[in-house]
Amino acid sequence: MASPSPPPPSERATVRRVAYRASYDRDVAHAILDEGFVAHVGITTDDGPVVIPTLYVRDGDRLLIHGSAASRLLRSAAAGTPVCVTVTLIDGLVLARSAFHHSVNYRSVVIFGQAQKIDDVDERRAALDVIVEGLVPGRISQPRAPRRPSEKELKATTVLALPLDELSVKVRDGNAIDEQEDYDLDVWAGVIPLTLAPGEPIPDPLVTELPPIPSYARNYSRV
Amino acid sequence: MASPSPPPPSERATVRRVAYRASYDRDVAHAILDEGFVAHVGITTDDGPVVIPTLYVRDGDRLLIHGSAASRLLRSAAAGTPVCVTVTLIDGLVLARSAFHHSVNYRSVVIFGQAQKIDDVDERRAALDVIVEGLVPGRISQPRAPRRPSEKELKATTVLALPLDELSVKVRDGNAIDEQEDYDLDVWAGVIPLTLAPGEPIPDPLVTELPPIPSYARNYSRV
Repeated sequence: MASPSPPPPSERATVRRVAYRASYDRDVAHAILDEGFVAHVGITTDDGPVVIPTLYVRDGDRLLIHGSAASRLLRSAAAGTPVCVTVTLIDGLVLARSAFHHSVNYRSVVIFGQAQKIDDVDERRAALDVIVEGLVPGRISQPRAPRRPSEKELKATTVLALPLDELSVKVRDGNAIDEQEDYDLDVWAGVIPLTLAPGEPIPDPLVTELPPIPSYARNYSRV
Repeated sequence: MASPSPPPPSERATVRRVAYRASYDRDVAHAILDEGFVAHVGITTDDGPVVIPTLYVRDGDRLLIHGSAASRLLRSAAAGTPVCVTVTLIDGLVLARSAFHHSVNYRSVVIFGQAQKIDDVDERRAALDVIVEGLVPGRISQPRAPRRPSEKELKATTVLALPLDELSVKVRDGNAIDEQEDYDLDVWAGVIPLTLAPGEPIPDPLVTELPPIPSYARNYSRV
């Protein structure tokens, strides 16, 4: 990672293992968060830890998470339960000459904090627009945008904001790093790149008279 | 999901929200776990929940997780701390006619339990072979396999086994489900498929005399 990186924001957000791959740089974190859209949210319950996948979108210095107002996870997080929210992007498999040095290229962000429920209705409407546009750039901002939430739908939707204050980034990239004496081995070494790749959009088969596939769906890209 | 599905294995593993998308079928869970290879492991600490991404491979009725013997997460899990391990595969973005009904197609498995450290050295060697072969099918079983762990490398590696007893599966697939009155709207609806797609393998640039790219790397596939 580029140095100088800011210091860790807290004790619990300090990366201990392979610390040279860690960063606490806000811009680095934001770039990773903007490429991803699925987070794993951890909370502590009476029954132990629970980790649930959820959609998210970054909105400035906060992460927006939404879901059903009936969700236990969201209700617990809205009540101020500490959360740990982790986003991981997989970039490739690293094949080394030794089993030991096999690895994975990835970028991850681990965020600690407490989420706040967005109670104000207008703010919630705006946040939901940010979420849809964040997940599918163009979906709200381009023509033929989807119908916005009704009063009833708004009531059924909880939106949480988690401050992006206390976080760490970890990145592994590049080639295999083998023991010096292993470079002579007759073993292929290298990286198999992996990307979450979009396919050809599949129009809803229930309706024959659909508008054409929008370019933001045909050329779906988050970066 | 196909019915009949077995009943939930425990209270905490019971899916509450949108329960018709849930399953407790072991074969369904195994198929998802075999396609993925990154899990998010949650534990409870004095500082609150922590969620860390890690590689895993399924080995029969258990999940194998490995890492540095110095890892706090692994040491904590090896000591019997309850864990929640979640695996999520992203299959697509679902664009509905209303913002509210936008969704994501995914398959996830949430596992609760306590992991056991594999202390026996031969068992650990075998488990590490299963892990490398599981991550890159062919890497151990085909010619030019990587060098196996030395004594020192084995000592530096912790391998944990988590029983696949207490788990739930959740799957969302198929098309957008809109409100009846919205089907007339002039809004494109459909699915943007997403897959973790392998690219062209990148041979290690440090060495000019590499063996040819193995077919399991060139045609990387987990399913």
